[in-house]
Amino acid sequence: MIQVAVLGYGTVGSGVVEVIEKNREMVNKKAGEDLNVKYILDLRDFPGDPYENKVVHDFAQILEDDEVKIICETMGGVGAAYTFTKQALSAGKSVCTSNKELVAAHGPELLALAKAHTCNYLFEASVGGGIPIIRPLNYSLTAEHIEEIMGILNGTTNYILSKMEKEGADFDSVLKEAQEKGYAERNPQADVEGFDACRKIAILSSLMTGKNVDYNRIYTEGITKITSEDFAYAAFMSMSIKLLAISRDTGGRTLAMVAPCMISREHPLYMVNGVFNAVFVKGNMLGDSMYYGRGAGKLPTASAVVSDVIDCARHQGKVIMCFWDSEEAQLQGIDDTERKFFFRVKKSGEEKVKALFAGAEYVRLPELEEECGVITGTMKEKDFEALYEQLGEEKIGTRIRMEA
Amino acid sequence: MIQVAVLGYGTVGSGVVEVIEKNREMVNKKAGEDLNVKYILDLRDFPGDPYENKVVHDFAQILEDDEVKIICETMGGVGAAYTFTKQALSAGKSVCTSNKELVAAHGPELLALAKAHTCNYLFEASVGGGIPIIRPLNYSLTAEHIEEIMGILNGTTNYILSKMEKEGADFDSVLKEAQEKGYAERNPQADVEGFDACRKIAILSSLMTGKNVDYNRIYTEGITKITSEDFAYAAFMSMSIKLLAISRDTGGRTLAMVAPCMISREHPLYMVNGVFNAVFVKGNMLGDSMYYGRGAGKLPTASAVVSDVIDCARHQGKVIMCFWDSEEAQLQGIDDTERKFFFRVKKSGEEKVKALFAGAEYVRLPELEEECGVITGTMKEKDFEALYEQLGEEKIGTRIRMEA
Repeated sequence: MIQVAVLGYGTVGSGVVEVIEKNREMVNKKAGEDLNVKYILDLRDFPGDPYENKVVHDFAQILEDDEVKIICETMGGVGAAYTFTKQALSAGKSVCTSNKELVAAHGPELLALAKAHTCNYLFEASVGGGIPIIRPLNYSLTAEHIEEIMGILNGTTNYILSKMEKEGADFDSVLKEAQEKGYAERNPQADVEGFDACRKIAILSSLMTGKNVDYNRIYTEGITKITSEDFAYAAFMSMSIKLLAISRDTGGRTLAMVAPCMISREHPLYMVNGVFNAVFVKGNMLGDSMYYGRGAGKLPTASAVVSDVIDCARHQGKVIMCFWDSEEAQLQGIDDTERKFFFRVKKSGEEKVKALFAGAEYVRLPELEEECGVITGTMKEKDFEALYEQLGEEKIGTRIRMEA
Repeated sequence: MIQVAVLGYGTVGSGVVEVIEKNREMVNKKAGEDLNVKYILDLRDFPGDPYENKVVHDFAQILEDDEVKIICETMGGVGAAYTFTKQALSAGKSVCTSNKELVAAHGPELLALAKAHTCNYLFEASVGGGIPIIRPLNYSLTAEHIEEIMGILNGTTNYILSKMEKEGADFDSVLKEAQEKGYAERNPQADVEGFDACRKIAILSSLMTGKNVDYNRIYTEGITKITSEDFAYAAFMSMSIKLLAISRDTGGRTLAMVAPCMISREHPLYMVNGVFNAVFVKGNMLGDSMYYGRGAGKLPTASAVVSDVIDCARHQGKVIMCFWDSEEAQLQGIDDTERKFFFRVKKSGEEKVKALFAGAEYVRLPELEEECGVITGTMKEKDFEALYEQLGEEKIGTRIRMEA
């Protein structure tokens, strides 16, 4: 019997208890030993909850109980969760987490701490919810040199963009509706500004390079400026607009960024709609692959946490392979990356565009007579920005990168 | 240094040597020790090949060399490959294989043999080529009760169907072209009759149930009867026709089958085109997930074999978890499964259809005036077949199952 503690009895934490309970037979078989949730740490009490007698308020009680071998940290944040995780690992207790902020902020330190105490710090649930992506990267694509990871890593923004695309609605009204339905937070900034996706691509980028990719250094742009007109142009070009989190090997350096991009109907990520997430991985031997599923939600995320618990149970006294050094990865600035760009311009600005952007293509929609869309040739980000700036008042809306 | 032997220097075998060579640094880092290909077993000689001095013709030489710890079986077939695998495992040498016939035919026996000799029999490359699917099923979706696996598992047939769909061409001409391009074998039966997909879903089904699913007991139907007219109807209904390999928990029993099916544009498998493969997995906690990539090809398949080699290297003296008992799984016969069916009927047969299939829907294409398409209500396979038979000469072509 392996005793487990769950820190934080919120959505994911209660999901963890539910998964262990509902799939008990399968979970115990795979773990090779019976698992039992001995403690649930939360500040609140849960009178009437079937597990109310497991609830404790003091982490010390868990830390000091030698029977507890595995801890699920489903609290979130980088405060108490950080402290508790360090204490747990230092005591040789493995920690499984869904906390992307903490993993992105302190991953290498916590992995090193786990290694030093011959236990494990696992975080499958921190990226892509229920989609197995950390483990495939660490255990499956081991013979690959990963050249690119491109993910739709945030369900809220993907839901909003999919709905804008499908219904021709504008950002504000779709966001409001998403908030009413509970698909978006009341304070939606972390999602719509791309901060959540940024943490997640920082984690994937670090695993891809084996070094540390600091999320503070990742170029991050949200979806708030995307309009229904942008989607009209995208549809006309058989493309879609997705918030992409990208990590790309540019030859020794790594380009890491989060931004709304146009992708074509041929790309596997094109069909990833609604709350679904997906991670596209390109290896030098394997070529293109993709991992798709529910990127969030109580049970999918909890299932990933429990798969980590099972992994810990099967590897007691062993350190599971994970290459993520504290050494900072060499990042490539976005300024020098090359691609095509899409933007909208007033009819009065067309001549100016022609003079500035040689070789650009023009897209005209019958319903938007007073403007046109422009697709530039392949050019450096900084060169584009300099020319685009010169269009001044002729510009409409924002420019969108063309990705694939 | 871990010494490795490769059995069979054909497409996959030479790919294995190439992957170990090209990604040497990454492979050795992940393996935790340097890997070296010491022997290549083949009946032929390879004068001028950079590895010609590693080529041997007698398996005994490999078997008797205590330095060789890991063997890659990339010969195929169930003859010598079976004998060599048994001998290797009995000698405590781990075996990594791409040989789906052998895994499907003797999986449980070989796994038990490996366990008895504290080594491993791994077969990531046997299904889905480079797509990590065996390892995700065995190590990642461990907290899940898997309810359904639905795969596009054969690249040749998917290429043919995609091309028929895109170009409105008929089966025979596309097959011929595929053969000329080397995408289809000169003897294409194993692919186009679904036998290859059948072996692969037998393997996935066995891992899903933990018991043995005998491929001989899997209902298998190929794509040779699918016509360009079928695709015209599918397109009109926003659907596609794919050769699906299905394993579904029907409550204690397992339905396993391979057949061309119609799937709707909303299903993740809809966009899997050309030589790409994908496996859709539905878990009771996770919901829908999908794994997508190159299902065949030298380097993708070899990369999967090498990922198994790395796994063996990291687990020397340990048996890696794999639940696949020799006990036969309880299969559900196809006769009692329920779904909708699509078929074509001559105009003269419409009244008969109306009398036989209450609640059917009708699809009329302007370019096919002398017939119509019919979609039945949900009904049992055996009930459908009985009624469909009564249509006699009024039927056109074949019936196609509506899957998702």
